[in-house]
Amino acid sequence: MHMPSHMPPSPSAPPLYRRLAAHYRGAIEAGSLAQGERMPSLRSLMRLHDISLSTALQLCRTLESDGWAEARDRSGYFVRKPQRLQMMPMGEPAASTSFDPAQYVGIHARVSDFVARRRAADVKVNLSTARAAPQLYPAEALRSNMARALRLRPELLSGAPPLRGDLNFRTALAKRAVSSGMTLSPEEVLVTNGCIEALNLALRAVAQPGDTIAVESPTFYGLLQVLESLGLRALEIPTSPQTGLSVEALELAFQAYDDIKAVVVIPHLQNPLGSVMPDAHKERLVRLCESRRVALVEDDTYTELLDVDTMPRAIKSWDRGGNVIHCASLHKILAPGLRLGWISAGRWQARVEMLKYTLSRHNEVLSQIGAGEFMGSGAYDRHLRRLRAALRVQRERTAEAIARYFPAGTRLNLPNGGLQLWVELPGMCSSADVFDVALREGIAVAPGLLFSNSQRTNHFLRINCGWPYDDAVDNAIRRLGRIASTL
Amino acid sequence: MHMPSHMPPSPSAPPLYRRLAAHYRGAIEAGSLAQGERMPSLRSLMRLHDISLSTALQLCRTLESDGWAEARDRSGYFVRKPQRLQMMPMGEPAASTSFDPAQYVGIHARVSDFVARRRAADVKVNLSTARAAPQLYPAEALRSNMARALRLRPELLSGAPPLRGDLNFRTALAKRAVSSGMTLSPEEVLVTNGCIEALNLALRAVAQPGDTIAVESPTFYGLLQVLESLGLRALEIPTSPQTGLSVEALELAFQAYDDIKAVVVIPHLQNPLGSVMPDAHKERLVRLCESRRVALVEDDTYTELLDVDTMPRAIKSWDRGGNVIHCASLHKILAPGLRLGWISAGRWQARVEMLKYTLSRHNEVLSQIGAGEFMGSGAYDRHLRRLRAALRVQRERTAEAIARYFPAGTRLNLPNGGLQLWVELPGMCSSADVFDVALREGIAVAPGLLFSNSQRTNHFLRINCGWPYDDAVDNAIRRLGRIASTL
Repeated sequence: MHMPSHMPPSPSAPPLYRRLAAHYRGAIEAGSLAQGERMPSLRSLMRLHDISLSTALQLCRTLESDGWAEARDRSGYFVRKPQRLQMMPMGEPAASTSFDPAQYVGIHARVSDFVARRRAADVKVNLSTARAAPQLYPAEALRSNMARALRLRPELLSGAPPLRGDLNFRTALAKRAVSSGMTLSPEEVLVTNGCIEALNLALRAVAQPGDTIAVESPTFYGLLQVLESLGLRALEIPTSPQTGLSVEALELAFQAYDDIKAVVVIPHLQNPLGSVMPDAHKERLVRLCESRRVALVEDDTYTELLDVDTMPRAIKSWDRGGNVIHCASLHKILAPGLRLGWISAGRWQARVEMLKYTLSRHNEVLSQIGAGEFMGSGAYDRHLRRLRAALRVQRERTAEAIARYFPAGTRLNLPNGGLQLWVELPGMCSSADVFDVALREGIAVAPGLLFSNSQRTNHFLRINCGWPYDDAVDNAIRRLGRIASTL
Repeated sequence: MHMPSHMPPSPSAPPLYRRLAAHYRGAIEAGSLAQGERMPSLRSLMRLHDISLSTALQLCRTLESDGWAEARDRSGYFVRKPQRLQMMPMGEPAASTSFDPAQYVGIHARVSDFVARRRAADVKVNLSTARAAPQLYPAEALRSNMARALRLRPELLSGAPPLRGDLNFRTALAKRAVSSGMTLSPEEVLVTNGCIEALNLALRAVAQPGDTIAVESPTFYGLLQVLESLGLRALEIPTSPQTGLSVEALELAFQAYDDIKAVVVIPHLQNPLGSVMPDAHKERLVRLCESRRVALVEDDTYTELLDVDTMPRAIKSWDRGGNVIHCASLHKILAPGLRLGWISAGRWQARVEMLKYTLSRHNEVLSQIGAGEFMGSGAYDRHLRRLRAALRVQRERTAEAIARYFPAGTRLNLPNGGLQLWVELPGMCSSADVFDVALREGIAVAPGLLFSNSQRTNHFLRINCGWPYDDAVDNAIRRLGRIASTL
């Protein structure tokens, strides 16, 4: 057996026991170690890899926590396949020719009710947001960049903020966009108050109240709220938990509705599904919208949380005539406390700039400077690798706990990145009821009914995996499973 | 003659020559020193006030710069009344029963055109904005507060921003509101991205596209842009250059139009007029809107630039049933580089909070902490006194130059505070033409047509007084006067 422990680790590499655990995991996935087989004893692990007893123990316990081994009394560790891999995947949506009539009433009330009740409750474990733990973000490096900028440039506070945002920051964003296949100049990047302001601007630039906007179904409730607040109608398009928006279904929708003014899509790690659109789908979508002269709005917020070495191409990378509006933010990947979003709006850029000026003027510049400097250094990629690795562990442990504790028939697609899991409860178990009962016990989750104007997602739950998986989270998932079983 | 120079100055008091100049100015205004009378010689001033030759010279030159004295060759200084006091005041608007049909087309295009041309030009003296020089703001104190907060609380960057904004900042705002007669709890204050976002939220909370909003005429183009971008109709109400919005005219408008959903008013230092509403008008306005159940939106951005010792009462202070929405910002009075606005929306507070969440989520918190600490200290009032004194000098010198250089028949009301002058050109001199010619010479002003959807203000100019009055500004005003004379 090859011994990776003898390779000199790079400075930012994970600890030895983690690398060995990944090695054994690969062996189990490849079938070299079979389900039920006895793992090498601690003594032989120590000899084989030239490691201490403590490292050998950490290795076995990690495999156990990740679901790849189980300890049996006095007999050592045995290989097992994680239970999460045996869960039924979700079904694919039918590319139906009948759509719900465009609905846009009620999400505000539902979300307000949900938020108000969560705030009023004594929440001990909050799994309802799409947020990661503060310690996963490089606060110290950002702080130091910002403190330096304050020291050297106090006129940042007393002079007018620069047009479109800090030039270095916009340059860093434009450079970064290259790795997603986009060619943007810094002048084509407008800094916004988070991705949510970018989406507001995009939709106001291309649509008028009463117009219809095609969205993925399900989609994150923030988008449904934006549509409702702007008086736009959400037309929900069937979306695959694996490959994202069904371009076929969208084509049918274009035939059925002639007032669709825009399509909003999250191509990578869709919220809540976690789906990732294949390149061929993205290209087809771009060409379809182009031929229909319908604006295509891309929400690229989650892409850099993908567990891959090479970033997938952004939808905007296929854009030829400026028909794609690219929106994104650093909220989830760099600093939840900063409101750093941006928009590149193709042929609507001038209109979006005027709308942004009319809505909130130019953004404060200090956090842009801090983030721009960080993104320009190698530290950014190191941070992303660490963040992805931590989130992977948290997602897998949460999924394993769901497989263990939730009722039979629960379905789950484990996404290849991101902060959350989308869980389908068996039968017609109402997630609103689960929410109610769980909240009384101090556990908050996001019930499925927030993610669609239809009733289609009422038996789903979105569960956050952004927090370190500890006993409190484990107990919360166990309680959720029990609640779902009894309802 | 009483000698103020012997009073011990307080640490933040203006320099001796300034205090002596104020003393002589008072004597001239009171008539103790008559127009044309010879001023005491430098020698007698030195003896009289026990001051050096250099201080006596500074005193005389200050009186001369401020327009209260003139030097005659070899004969010393002679008393004069500033020319600006002899300018004709503007006329009062007629409280007409016929209103322009609600117009809301074109301001975007006009403003875009104006902004684009100003940016493309090689502007050497920019008098077109409502902005003061960076050195008039306490950047160093804010910087130090923010650096400390960054050092002690790096989790500001990696954790979620607090609901509604930083609690200390909201508490400081609520405390400050007391001096304007308002009683607000910090929970009733929502932090926004500047006053412009607050106005967007206020209008979206109370009106739907197509609705009519009553505004002052003229009013700042930012507001007209907001209305147009939201699909709202601006109904312009006659407004006095002295006492602000005509409540009588508004009453007539209510009788003529039954779809007015809100009234937006800048009660103190109205932009561009500089008018200040008397208390009786404000109270009558509150009661009128209350009885009609029409929302009253108060833009309180400029109040603290008023040259008075006691702040006037905010409109909101007469509010009983939550019908007044109070909006304001620190952009003009504390830090132009920070986007610190807020809103207290009365009975629409919950709706405004949800709209804000849907539009841009909660604000970044660092600048709020810096501003909140500053406002909680005595330094804030000292800063305001210095800022007001500097702006007073700049306003008076600019007005004096206008009186000297502009064609006969030019009208001007010198406002009691603020950053700008609103100038009425004689005859039907087009301010758009003045703008065109001046821009070619590197001078930017704001032409009147930006401040109304009607043609009513085409012969007005708004001139910024935020920059120290130096030779470049003096030359620019002289050129503007010559251009206006020849057109």
